[in-house]
Amino acid sequence: MKTLFIGGIKSGKSINAQKHILKNSITKPTYLATTEFVDAGMKERIDAHIENRGDDFETLEEPLKIYEVIKTNKNPVLVECVSMWINNMFYHSFSLEDMKKELTKILELNQDIVFVLNDVGSGIIPDNKLSRDFIDASGKLSQLIASECDEVYHTIAGISTRIK
Amino acid sequence: MKTLFIGGIKSGKSINAQKHILKNSITKPTYLATTEFVDAGMKERIDAHIENRGDDFETLEEPLKIYEVIKTNKNPVLVECVSMWINNMFYHSFSLEDMKKELTKILELNQDIVFVLNDVGSGIIPDNKLSRDFIDASGKLSQLIASECDEVYHTIAGISTRIK
Amino acid sequence: MKTLFIGGIKSGKSINAQKHILKNSITKPTYLATTEFVDAGMKERIDAHIENRGDDFETLEEPLKIYEVIKTNKNPVLVECVSMWINNMFYHSFSLEDMKKELTKILELNQDIVFVLNDVGSGIIPDNKLSRDFIDASGKLSQLIASECDEVYHTIAGISTRIK
Repeated sequence: MKTLFIGGIKSGKSINAQKHILKNSITKPTYLATTEFVDAGMKERIDAHIENRGDDFETLEEPLKIYEVIKTNKNPVLVECVSMWINNMFYHSFSLEDMKKELTKILELNQDIVFVLNDVGSGIIPDNKLSRDFIDASGKLSQLIASECDEVYHTIAGISTRIK
Repeated sequence: MKTLFIGGIKSGKSINAQKHILKNSITKPTYLATTEFVDAGMKERIDAHIENRGDDFETLEEPLKIYEVIKTNKNPVLVECVSMWINNMFYHSFSLEDMKKELTKILELNQDIVFVLNDVGSGIIPDNKLSRDFIDASGKLSQLIASECDEVYHTIAGISTRIK
Repeated sequence: MKTLFIGGIKSGKSINAQKHILKNSITKPTYLATTEFVDAGMKERIDAHIENRGDDFETLEEPLKIYEVIKTNKNPVLVECVSMWINNMFYHSFSLEDMKKELTKILELNQDIVFVLNDVGSGIIPDNKLSRDFIDASGKLSQLIASECDEVYHTIAGISTRIK
């Protein structure tokens, strides 16, 4: 069973994805943290995330090779988040094709996975190319993930509405 | 009864919120205008808003202390809009905690209130800190408001879809 | 029958709009391409669009006077996309009133038309006036189109949800 939670920044998608996986798991789920680069602002967000999830999860950290981590894991996995992973992959010069391949392998696994992804494409088209490339990649990969997920939830103001 | 209308810029959320409160009020509702700073562009928007609402509302203006205004008001109140109020609170150096406290007090009132709020978190993460802080505050406060509202509507292209 | 597909950048709205019009047309539909300005990045997008639609459509190109093109066309028309047309109209100094008039004439035609439009208003309010004006026009015109459409679909992560 695969599930996608998509929504804007601070829409509440992460909290709702956590509640969702906890409610649906009979074993302790794994929290796969993809964050690689940490500044003060990030640290604060991460600490808030950690505080939110308490002891309910086992936490693993991997910024790039997430397929390996998920494949060797027996429990349901919360990928938090795909957007940060895309960011890391860009930074390390991986191509969109590389990202598609990695995600396709993950989507073929017979495991319970919940993906969290930032919706970044509903603002004005930005004037710098890197942002545009990121939006394009994020959009295409979100379509790829959603097409293989059993359930997709869109979150606004803390309310997750099932759209698939 | 508390209601939230959330949506992007020029999505039609304000017009629909006005129609909603007018349809559901037996007394003349109050239009609580939170705008503090007015330049030529804002003036034009405000005039368009005023023209839209005609004589259907009694208008009160308060950029910051909205709890006091709402509490001492007997009629249903349309808060137009929460985003501008957040903006004013930021400008006057109030903290997110201050904003949460003010909103929490409002949400505990036994009155009919319709909140209008801009969805600002579905674009690319902006590179300036003030914008990021605003998005964070807006997202957290929209979650707070939505959690206490009986009905929440998301508006796109003038169409308000109930999501709670 | 008139239909609007709205969604963010790379949300999948174009592909879904194409599938929708192909499924509902008994004659070969017309693909009305509104793109006027083409740089390398645009060229790549356009080629991807062309590859996606194959021989299923007859393609016509018109960046500005789309009413004339649609009126003289007998087959269902996919307007791809309204956002690019707004952009062109801005560039050539047409006013929002001009755009409203052109669209109103189109919406009064007794023809099958599918409109594709970018949702650009759910990010932070941009600090340059041209972007704000574009968002305002896009929002107002999307309301105009949606109000006259029989069906409106919002697309996220490749999933189009009917909202009207």
